[in-house]
Amino acid sequence: MTTPNLRETQTDLAERYEAFQAMKLKLDMTRGKPANEQLDLAKGLLECVTSDDFKALDGTDTRNYGGLEGLPEARALFAAYFGVKPAEVLIGGNSSLQLMFDTLLRAHVFGVPGGERPWGREEKVRWLCPAPGYDRHFAITAHLGYELVTVPMTGHGPDMDVVERLALDPSVKGIWIVPKYANPTGESVSAENVARLAHMKAGAPDFRIIWDDAYAVHHLGPERDEVPNILDACQSAGHPNRVFIFGSTSKISHAGAGLSAMAANEANITWTKLHAGKQTIGPDKVNQLRHVRYFKDMHGIERHMDKHATIMKPKFDAVLRVLEEELGGTHLATWTTPRGGYFVSLDTPPGHAKNVVRLAAEAGVKLTEAGATFPYGKDPDDRNIRLAPSFPTLLEIELATRVVATCVKLSWAQRA
Amino acid sequence: MTTPNLRETQTDLAERYEAFQAMKLKLDMTRGKPANEQLDLAKGLLECVTSDDFKALDGTDTRNYGGLEGLPEARALFAAYFGVKPAEVLIGGNSSLQLMFDTLLRAHVFGVPGGERPWGREEKVRWLCPAPGYDRHFAITAHLGYELVTVPMTGHGPDMDVVERLALDPSVKGIWIVPKYANPTGESVSAENVARLAHMKAGAPDFRIIWDDAYAVHHLGPERDEVPNILDACQSAGHPNRVFIFGSTSKISHAGAGLSAMAANEANITWTKLHAGKQTIGPDKVNQLRHVRYFKDMHGIERHMDKHATIMKPKFDAVLRVLEEELGGTHLATWTTPRGGYFVSLDTPPGHAKNVVRLAAEAGVKLTEAGATFPYGKDPDDRNIRLAPSFPTLLEIELATRVVATCVKLSWAQRA
Repeated sequence: MTTPNLRETQTDLAERYEAFQAMKLKLDMTRGKPANEQLDLAKGLLECVTSDDFKALDGTDTRNYGGLEGLPEARALFAAYFGVKPAEVLIGGNSSLQLMFDTLLRAHVFGVPGGERPWGREEKVRWLCPAPGYDRHFAITAHLGYELVTVPMTGHGPDMDVVERLALDPSVKGIWIVPKYANPTGESVSAENVARLAHMKAGAPDFRIIWDDAYAVHHLGPERDEVPNILDACQSAGHPNRVFIFGSTSKISHAGAGLSAMAANEANITWTKLHAGKQTIGPDKVNQLRHVRYFKDMHGIERHMDKHATIMKPKFDAVLRVLEEELGGTHLATWTTPRGGYFVSLDTPPGHAKNVVRLAAEAGVKLTEAGATFPYGKDPDDRNIRLAPSFPTLLEIELATRVVATCVKLSWAQRA
Repeated sequence: MTTPNLRETQTDLAERYEAFQAMKLKLDMTRGKPANEQLDLAKGLLECVTSDDFKALDGTDTRNYGGLEGLPEARALFAAYFGVKPAEVLIGGNSSLQLMFDTLLRAHVFGVPGGERPWGREEKVRWLCPAPGYDRHFAITAHLGYELVTVPMTGHGPDMDVVERLALDPSVKGIWIVPKYANPTGESVSAENVARLAHMKAGAPDFRIIWDDAYAVHHLGPERDEVPNILDACQSAGHPNRVFIFGSTSKISHAGAGLSAMAANEANITWTKLHAGKQTIGPDKVNQLRHVRYFKDMHGIERHMDKHATIMKPKFDAVLRVLEEELGGTHLATWTTPRGGYFVSLDTPPGHAKNVVRLAAEAGVKLTEAGATFPYGKDPDDRNIRLAPSFPTLLEIELATRVVATCVKLSWAQRA
C-alpha cells in the first residue's frame, strides 16, 4: 500500500463524525438480506399452487407424503441451474445451509464414499477456509471441532498454490468454496483454478469440496462471471466423488421460503439418500411445485434475476460512488467492484477494521462484526469489513457508506 | 391363546383365496398416509398467505430470512397443542421425524445437557424400543449404531417393570415413546406409566425420552384417550431435562407440507438452538403463517380433527367388522380396537405373520412387511401385522381386510 494521505484534518473529520452522531442514525449494513421490493418481485409465487390445483406433472399429489429426491420437474430445474443431470440432483427444504450442515454431519458420523472411517473417528480433521469468506460456513466446520486453516483469496478464487500444498496433508478433509461472486469479495473462481481444484492430489482419499453456488445467477449487469462445471471437471480429472454442489432460491424467490438443492455424482447422491432417508420422508413438495410453476425453466429464472439486478445495481453503485468520493486517491483503503453477489468487501489499513466498525456503530451504522469473514472470527490483519447493501434503501446506503468512509479516515487520523 | 377352531375347511379357504387371486386386486394397506379427501379438508390453507398479505402479527415479513425459533404465533399454537409454554417450543420444517433425527444426531456428536460426553463417544449405547412400534423410530437409533432393546407393550404403554429395570443400565440412553394412539397398537400411555417414566431412576445421567406425540388430537370418536403432560411430570419428578416432545400437522393439514414442532425445558431448548443455529437461519415462516391463520387456535385444530374422524372412523369400523366376521370366535387372531391414530394391529398365531403377508401379497393386497414393527425388522414371534386403513377407499378396505383374514385362516389350515 502506498503511504496514505488525507485531504481532511483530524479536526474536520471529528466534526463530521460528530455531525453524523447528532443525526441519531439507525442504519444496518450487516446482512445479505434481500430488500422487500426484491421479495415482491416473486409476486404470484404464493398463488400458483391452490387448494384445487396441487398436482405435479406426473399426477403426484404434492400435499401428501413421499418424494425423498424431490419432484422430477424440480430436479430438472435445478439440473439446468447447476449444469448437471436431473439424477444428480436432490431437492431440500428452505435452506441450503442445512443441506451443507447435514452433509458434513453425515460425513462426520458415518463417513463418505471412499473414506476409511467417519471423520469424527479421525485423530484430527483440518478444513481449508478461503478467507475473507462466509462466516456461517466457517462456523459449521468449527462446530464439528475441525481445525480451520485460512487460505488467502486471490481475486479469482483461493490461492491454489497454498491449497495444493495443504491438501496433501491427509488430515485435510475438504475446503469451502463459493465459486461465483463470493461472499464477501465478489470474486469468482477462474477456469484454471477450477481445473486445479479438480485435478490436485489430495492426501485424504475422501477429500471433499463443498461448492456453495449461492450466487450462480446473481449478476449485477450484463458483464458476467462464468465458472466451469466443477462436477464435470472432477469427473474428467479422475476424482468423481470430490465435490458436493449446493444452491437455493433464497436470493431468487423468497429468502426464508425458497427451495434448496444439491448436486453430486451418483455415489455421493446414493450415499446422501441412504442417510436422508432415515431423517425424513421427504421435503415440502408443495413449495417445489410453486417454484417450478412460477419460474418454469432457467430462462424464467434468468429473466427474474434481471429484475433483481435493476434493484441491486444502483445500491452497489451508491456504495462504490461514495467510497470513491470519500476514499479515492487517499491510499487509505481498497474495495471490490463485484459483477454480482451481495457484498462489497472493504479493506482498511491493517489494525483499523475493528475500530472502524466500533466508530460506525457509535454513529448509528451497524456493520458486520470485524473479523467475521475469517475463521474463528479473527482477521489476522484486522482490516476486512463486509458491506451488505441489499436491504437498506438507496439513501440509507449512501449515508451509511459515507459514515463508514469517514470512520476509516478518522480512525487513521486519530492514530497517525 | 385358546385352541383355534376354523369354521371353513382348508379346501373352502383355498377356493376363496383362489377367487381373490382371480380378481387381480391391487390394494395397499401399508402406510399411514392420509387419503386425498383428508388433505382436501384443509381447503384454503394454500390461499391464506398471498403475495400481498404475508406479514406475521408483529409485522415480520415471513418471506425473508430469520426466525430460528419460529413465529411467536406458531409457537403459541404448538404450546397449546403440547400443553407447554411458548418459550418451551421450537418450530421446525415439514417433518417431525427430521426434528427427532437431528436431536439424536446432536446428542450423538455433541452430547446433551447433563451428559458426560457425546453419545457417539460412549463405548456402547443401548436404546429402549417398545414394540410393536414405529419402524422409522427404530431405524434412526439402529442407524446410529445403538443396540435396540425390545420392551413389550401392555395396552397402556410399555411394560414399565421392564423399562425401570433396563433404565438402570448406564449404557441405556433413552426410549422411544408414542404416548397416544401408538403406531401400530393404538394404545396410550396411562397416567401411572407417565409418572413412572418421569420418576424412574436412570443409570445414565443424560437419559432421554423421545416423546413422539404424533397422534395427540387424532381421535376417532367422542371417546378419547388423555395422557398427562410429560414435561410437567419430569419437572416435578426432579428430572427436568429428561424429555423431548415432538409433533406435527402432517396428519392434520398436509402430510408433506405441514408444520413440525418440538417442546422441551429451557436447558434442552437452549441446547437445541445452539446447534440448530449452526444448521439453518430458520425454518419456512410462510408456511407457519399459513397454518396459524388457517387453524387460528387449538379449538380450530380440534374442530378440524372432527372432520378427519368422520372420514377415518368408517374405515376403522370396516376393518374391525370384517375381522370380526371372518375371525371372530376362531381364537386364531387378536386385534386392537383403537380410539384414535392410524392403525389396527393384528396378531396371528405365532409363526404365521410372514406367511400371511406373503399370501396376501400374492392375492394383490400389499401389507406392511411382517416384522417391521419390531427392532431390526424382526418380530421374535412372527405374529404382528400392521393394518393401515387411512388411504384406501371403504370398499378397498373391506376387500383387503377380507383377503387378509382369509390368508390368516388359510395359513393356519395349511399347517394344522
